[in-house]
Amino acid sequence: MSLLSLKTEVFRRNLDLVRHGLVVLTWGNVSGIDREAGLVAIKPSGVAYDAMTAEDIVVVDLDGHVVEGSLRPSSDLPTHLALYRAFPSVGGIVHTHSPKAVAWAQARRAIPAFGTTHADHFHGPVPCTRELTPEEVAADYERNTGLVIAERFRDLDPDAFPGVLVAGHGPFTWGRDPRKAVENAVALEQIAAMALDTLAIDPSAAPAPAHVLDKHYFRKHGPGAYYGQK
Amino acid sequence: MSLLSLKTEVFRRNLDLVRHGLVVLTWGNVSGIDREAGLVAIKPSGVAYDAMTAEDIVVVDLDGHVVEGSLRPSSDLPTHLALYRAFPSVGGIVHTHSPKAVAWAQARRAIPAFGTTHADHFHGPVPCTRELTPEEVAADYERNTGLVIAERFRDLDPDAFPGVLVAGHGPFTWGRDPRKAVENAVALEQIAAMALDTLAIDPSAAPAPAHVLDKHYFRKHGPGAYYGQK
Amino acid sequence: MSLLSLKTEVFRRNLDLVRHGLVVLTWGNVSGIDREAGLVAIKPSGVAYDAMTAEDIVVVDLDGHVVEGSLRPSSDLPTHLALYRAFPSVGGIVHTHSPKAVAWAQARRAIPAFGTTHADHFHGPVPCTRELTPEEVAADYERNTGLVIAERFRDLDPDAFPGVLVAGHGPFTWGRDPRKAVENAVALEQIAAMALDTLAIDPSAAPAPAHVLDKHYFRKHGPGAYYGQK
Amino acid sequence: MSLLSLKTEVFRRNLDLVRHGLVVLTWGNVSGIDREAGLVAIKPSGVAYDAMTAEDIVVVDLDGHVVEGSLRPSSDLPTHLALYRAFPSVGGIVHTHSPKAVAWAQARRAIPAFGTTHADHFHGPVPCTRELTPEEVAADYERNTGLVIAERFRDLDPDAFPGVLVAGHGPFTWGRDPRKAVENAVALEQIAAMALDTLAIDPSAAPAPAHVLDKHYFRKHGPGAYYGQK
Repeated sequence: MSLLSLKTEVFRRNLDLVRHGLVVLTWGNVSGIDREAGLVAIKPSGVAYDAMTAEDIVVVDLDGHVVEGSLRPSSDLPTHLALYRAFPSVGGIVHTHSPKAVAWAQARRAIPAFGTTHADHFHGPVPCTRELTPEEVAADYERNTGLVIAERFRDLDPDAFPGVLVAGHGPFTWGRDPRKAVENAVALEQIAAMALDTLAIDPSAAPAPAHVLDKHYFRKHGPGAYYGQK
Repeated sequence: MSLLSLKTEVFRRNLDLVRHGLVVLTWGNVSGIDREAGLVAIKPSGVAYDAMTAEDIVVVDLDGHVVEGSLRPSSDLPTHLALYRAFPSVGGIVHTHSPKAVAWAQARRAIPAFGTTHADHFHGPVPCTRELTPEEVAADYERNTGLVIAERFRDLDPDAFPGVLVAGHGPFTWGRDPRKAVENAVALEQIAAMALDTLAIDPSAAPAPAHVLDKHYFRKHGPGAYYGQK
Repeated sequence: MSLLSLKTEVFRRNLDLVRHGLVVLTWGNVSGIDREAGLVAIKPSGVAYDAMTAEDIVVVDLDGHVVEGSLRPSSDLPTHLALYRAFPSVGGIVHTHSPKAVAWAQARRAIPAFGTTHADHFHGPVPCTRELTPEEVAADYERNTGLVIAERFRDLDPDAFPGVLVAGHGPFTWGRDPRKAVENAVALEQIAAMALDTLAIDPSAAPAPAHVLDKHYFRKHGPGAYYGQK
Repeated sequence: MSLLSLKTEVFRRNLDLVRHGLVVLTWGNVSGIDREAGLVAIKPSGVAYDAMTAEDIVVVDLDGHVVEGSLRPSSDLPTHLALYRAFPSVGGIVHTHSPKAVAWAQARRAIPAFGTTHADHFHGPVPCTRELTPEEVAADYERNTGLVIAERFRDLDPDAFPGVLVAGHGPFTWGRDPRKAVENAVALEQIAAMALDTLAIDPSAAPAPAHVLDKHYFRKHGPGAYYGQK
C-alpha cells in the first residue's frame, strides 16, 4: 500500500464517521497503519470535517514523529500508537464520543451482551477500563489511556472484542483495517443504544445465552463464517 | 409477475429500509415470493445498500437452491423460507435490527397494545418467541428461527399479527407483498418506541380497551375497512 | 380566499408535517376551513405524502359531503368537522401520531407545564380526554372523538390550549389557520419530549410557577404580546 | 471589524443553529458584539430561519436602541445585553430551547460533570440559576433573566463555565466570538443528552474525578492547551 493510499483511506474513513452520525464538531478520529512501513496515518487535531482534505492527514512513525503533513496530529495519537503496539493484528483504530457509548463509559459499566446484534460484533460484554490514576493522567495522559486499555485486554482477544469503553471518557474501536474499525464504531453505538432501552424495559434483563452468542459471533468470524460474500 | 418484476420490487423495498431509517450497515433484508412459480427473491448477504443493484437480488426456489444470481443469498434466507411455508397468505417478509424493536426482543417482552397506532397494525400485543434451544441453534439455526416463529403463531393469525419479535434477536414482519411487509416493519419500530416511552411515563400503563383495539384494526382490515382509497 | 388558495394552503401544510418529521407513512392530516363559504379542505385518506398533489386535496361542506375532489377524504374528517363546529375561532386542524405526544396519550396523562417552551404555546397542562365508551366507538367513532375533545374543553379556552391528547390515541392541534395549527403540532411534540426527559431526571419535578407561565403565554398571545414582528 | 462583517457573522452563526439541529421553528438566537464600537448584532424576533437574510440582522447599542435594521430585535435582547455587561470577555451569545438541555433546566438541576466530553467544555457542573421572583418576571423580565444568570456567576468564571441553564426555561451559552458560543451550545446539548442516559444506566453515577476534569479542561484551554492547531 502506498502512503497516498493509506492517507486517502484514512481520510475517507474519517468522513464516514460524519456520514454515520457518530461525531459532532471535531470529536472523533480514525487512524490506519501500514505495518510493513511502520507508519500510521491519522486525522489532524481539531480540524473541522467539512474543511479537511486528504492532504491534511498526518503521517507519523510508531514513536509519533511526523513523517508527512504540516498539521499537528490528533491529540489522541499516543493512545492509537499504544494500541497498535499492544494489538499486532489491528490495522485501523477509531475514537469517537458517540453519545450512547459515552453514556455507558460515564456510568463505568460494561455493556451486557443482550442479543444477537451485540454478538455479531463482540464475543461477550463490551469491556470497560478502570479509571486512570492521578499519576497516569499527569504524565503522558493519552499514552496511558492506551496502556490502560491494553491492561484491560490482558485476558481478552482484541479480535473477538474489537472495542472498549474508557471509563469516564468514551469508546475506542478497531479492526483489521480502518473501514472495519469504523463498522465496529457504528455497531458499538447501536448496541449501546439498544442495551440502554433493554434495561429501560426490564432493569433485570439477562444476557443472551452462550450458545446464541457463540453462534452469532462465529457466523461472522473465523473459519466457519458464512455471513456475507466469499 | 415476471421474475424481473419480482427482483425489481424486492430491490426497491430493500432500499426502502434505508429510506425509513430502519437499517444501519447491512443489518436487514427484504424478500418477496412468486407463489405460482414457487420462487423467492431476496437481498444478497452482507452487500452494502448503496452498492447494491437490482441485478444483485438472488432468486431461489423454496428449498433454497439458487435459480438466478451470482451472489450468496442473505444468511437469513432459511428463516424467510420457513415463514413462507408456514404462512400461505404472506407475499413479502422483512427482517431488520431496528433499535427499539430489538430492545423489546432483547427484554424478551411482547409489546403491549397501548393505543391506536398499535391497533392499526397489530390486533393485540406484538408476540415474542421463546429462546431457541442449544440444539436448535447448533443444527440449522436460521431455519429453526423460522420454525420457532411458526410455533409462536400456532394460535395466532399471521394476517392479524403481521410481525414478531424473536427473543434476544429482533423483529421479522410480513405482509401480502414486500411493500406491505416494509410498512409493517416501519409501524413496528414506531410502536416499539412509543410503548417504551409510555412505560417511562407510567410503568403501570394499561393496554387500550378491546373495543378501541378492535375498532382501529377493523377500520383498516377486512370487509368493513374504510381507511384509504377503494 | 378562493377554493384554490385553500386547497393549496392545506396541501402545503400537509407537506410541512413531513418536513418537521411529525409523520411516518400516512399517519397524519391537516385541514383548513373557509368559514364564510362553510367549506373544509383536507388530506385524502391513506395517500402517500410523496405522491400527493394539491389536486388530491378534498373539499367538503360542514356535513362532510364532498364538494370537490375525486378521492375519499381522511377517515378522521368527522373529528375535524366536530372541532370546527365546537371551536368557532379555529381555522386549521392537525392530527398526527407524533411519537412523544402519542406516548403521553397512551399513558392517559396530561403533559405538565414544566417550563417556558410549554408556556409559550399552552397556558397550562396539555389536556388529555377521557376514553371513548364502547357505544361511542361503535357508532360514529370519529365524530365522537371530536365530541369527547369538545367535552374536555367545556371549561377550557381552545385559543389558550391549542391542542389535546386523545386518550390511547394521539394529538390533535389547531390554530387560527393551518400554518399555526402545524406550528402547534411541532411545539406539542417538542414539549412532550422535553417533559418525558424532565421526569426521567426528576420523577417529582414540579410545574413552572404561575407567574412564569403567564408571562410567557402573554408575551406571545393577546393584546400585550411583544414577541415577533408587528 | 466592520458592521457588515459583524452582521454577516451573526447571520451565519444563527444558521448554524439550524444546521446543528438545535432549533425548531424560531426558538433560538445568536448575537455578537463589537466591544470597541459598543454595538451588538442579533437575530430579529420571530423570523423564520429559512426566510432570514443577513440584512435582517438588527444592530443595537448596549442600551438596546436600534442603530441599524428595520425589524424588531429578538425579544431576548435584554438578556444578551445584561450578559455582555456582566461578562467583559464574552464576544458572542447563544440562546436555544435545545431539548435535552431544556429537560435539565426544567428539572432545575445542574448537569453533573460525568466525563471528559463535559470536561472539554465546562470546568465543573453546568450551573442552573434560581427561579425568577414574581417581581422580577413582572418588571423587565428578559433583563432580569440576564441578571439572575450574572448572580449565579458571582463565584464562577464565565470563561471556564461558558453556559448556564435558566431554571424552568433553557440554556444560554457564550464564547469569545459567536462561533465559539455556537460550539458551546452544541456541546451543552450533547453533554445534557449523555448525562441523562448516564443516569438511566446508573442513577447513582458519580462525577469524573477532579484530576480527569482538570486534565481535559486544560488540554483545550489556557496557556498549556495542546488540542487543535497552533
